[in-house]
Amino acid sequence: MRTVGILGGGQLARMLALAGIPLGLRFVFASPQPGECAFELGRAVVADWRSVEADPGVLAEADVVTWEFENISLRALRRLEKILPVIPSPEILAVKQDRLREKQVFCSLSIPTADFAPVDSAEDARKAAEVLGLPLVLKTRAHGYDGKGQVIARDISHLEESVSRGGHLLAERFVTFDRELSVVGVRTADGSHRFYPVTENIHREGILRVSRCRPDDPKWHEASEYVRRLMDYFGYAGVLAVEFFEKDGGLLANEFSPRVHNTGHWTIEGAETSQFENHLRAVVGWEPGSTAPVAHAVMVNCIGFLPAPEDVARIPGAHMHIYGKAIRPRRKVGHITVRAGSQALLEERLRAVGRLLDEAV
Amino acid sequence: MRTVGILGGGQLARMLALAGIPLGLRFVFASPQPGECAFELGRAVVADWRSVEADPGVLAEADVVTWEFENISLRALRRLEKILPVIPSPEILAVKQDRLREKQVFCSLSIPTADFAPVDSAEDARKAAEVLGLPLVLKTRAHGYDGKGQVIARDISHLEESVSRGGHLLAERFVTFDRELSVVGVRTADGSHRFYPVTENIHREGILRVSRCRPDDPKWHEASEYVRRLMDYFGYAGVLAVEFFEKDGGLLANEFSPRVHNTGHWTIEGAETSQFENHLRAVVGWEPGSTAPVAHAVMVNCIGFLPAPEDVARIPGAHMHIYGKAIRPRRKVGHITVRAGSQALLEERLRAVGRLLDEAV
Repeated sequence: MRTVGILGGGQLARMLALAGIPLGLRFVFASPQPGECAFELGRAVVADWRSVEADPGVLAEADVVTWEFENISLRALRRLEKILPVIPSPEILAVKQDRLREKQVFCSLSIPTADFAPVDSAEDARKAAEVLGLPLVLKTRAHGYDGKGQVIARDISHLEESVSRGGHLLAERFVTFDRELSVVGVRTADGSHRFYPVTENIHREGILRVSRCRPDDPKWHEASEYVRRLMDYFGYAGVLAVEFFEKDGGLLANEFSPRVHNTGHWTIEGAETSQFENHLRAVVGWEPGSTAPVAHAVMVNCIGFLPAPEDVARIPGAHMHIYGKAIRPRRKVGHITVRAGSQALLEERLRAVGRLLDEAV
Repeated sequence: MRTVGILGGGQLARMLALAGIPLGLRFVFASPQPGECAFELGRAVVADWRSVEADPGVLAEADVVTWEFENISLRALRRLEKILPVIPSPEILAVKQDRLREKQVFCSLSIPTADFAPVDSAEDARKAAEVLGLPLVLKTRAHGYDGKGQVIARDISHLEESVSRGGHLLAERFVTFDRELSVVGVRTADGSHRFYPVTENIHREGILRVSRCRPDDPKWHEASEYVRRLMDYFGYAGVLAVEFFEKDGGLLANEFSPRVHNTGHWTIEGAETSQFENHLRAVVGWEPGSTAPVAHAVMVNCIGFLPAPEDVARIPGAHMHIYGKAIRPRRKVGHITVRAGSQALLEERLRAVGRLLDEAV
């Protein structure tokens, strides 16, 4: 019986454990908070891996360690690596934790992105506005998520005001995209890859709302080639997602996530092997399973609200996932995957889910 | 958050919990043994529900109670019913615990069975041999499973020897059947039903080895009608399975199981809603989900042996389920479900699984 240590104890850790328990894996979760939603599925140890002080010894019972979030102290992780295998290899987090380095890696691999420039001063900001135009997107270089740490600067005074708060920033050209896409891939340590179909995504207020699996998407080939380059560059093992904007038929990489990803949740019911199982397979060194879709599928996030499960149960093909988290505004507390034999039926069922969530999806 | 109490802590309880946790359910398992394989998925309380002495108070935290095994003290269960809803209603267990009553219920509902006779004496045995012929199947009336409590009496002396050991027995005509089938159904308290496709089963040494989902089986209509009659008779809520022999195109009901059933394990990957989720939906009062198959599917039991999961991972469409039980001869310690887009591909993948299990399947 192998024990997988997971840094973090949220819904991604929970869904990893739900996928891994039938495979005979056991789990230990390291998280600073008590009562995290994954804890009912394994043993919990208290450790704050955002801090360099985190004690690697708390994970000694694990045979291998992975993570479900990115804001981890690299120095602490390197100490952990001395006693246990950490998969994926931590180096990718150093890049992921700095949006400038993330962009630079995309560029070095000829993966197109929106134009960007580092902004450390008012002078940088003015230059960025000249080169990239206004409005532009201003992001903290240190990691944010779900739209945190981002503003759209509409004019010079707004831009200067944002810069005056200090810190290292990244300016990006504001892209009025046609579609948001992502591709989730899995790579094993020995270099074999598999890619899930393109997922077409809808965000609102910086938070993912809907992910539709698009099995025959014309951009799959190009997008998965970019994911492959990125995974190969890092000698990656595990699941990795890249989010793209599509603009006038071209792709622009927005960001990558070196972990299981919200736009891959539909794979639990929608693909032959879920992203959670495939991440674990890569982490423990087994061959990844097929990423082929088994039906038309779409996922809807439950943000700050959970419909009654008995209402979801009435919608054919709807599969409820409740994370067991306290409900708060803007918080992801569950998701619903809808499966159907045809796209038309899928959209009809999705509308029924949308009525429960009281929002157009 | 609703808490479901389960009497028993084995693999059926474990798979119920794995299905229920994403639905926001919590679990408490009541079992006399420590370290049962479901315990990692909820809270365990020590209580032997085979005994009339079992204390209903240990389940007080549950909102509703169900079971995963049948050998439960009815008197203890009736005491439990005074403090908590028990679903399905316990009366069906009184029938299930006596093979003679089980047969009589089949007869009263015009569900055909093999001819049978109660045997309480040597005189009864001789009469049974005259009427039913030899060989005949001799079973203890009190509940057995996986072939326990059954012998095939080939001649009168063997028959008399078996009877001389005492106890209430049931003699059944020995049926040389063409196929073994089962149908798993789900019924809600308000009387709506759904039925999974026919499963074609292979037993060896009294233990189920292989279950193949047969979506368009010509016997589905008749078999599911029998399951419906049985569930309606008991005002049943939950999942119930009936096993049949097919002989010269006719069905003979062999036994029913008022619970999730081994021949329904393929539904985890093979059906729109698994038998485990549907049992829980009925227990907590939600509408059952679609029982339609999503692919061609077959399940193979791992009996007294587990293949290496990394070997299973190499077989496309194979999904490993390890129960986390100590391995012993004749013990069900896991199962593998194989899914494929065509029957031919399914059989090819099944052969690969069979090679791992070192038996022809």
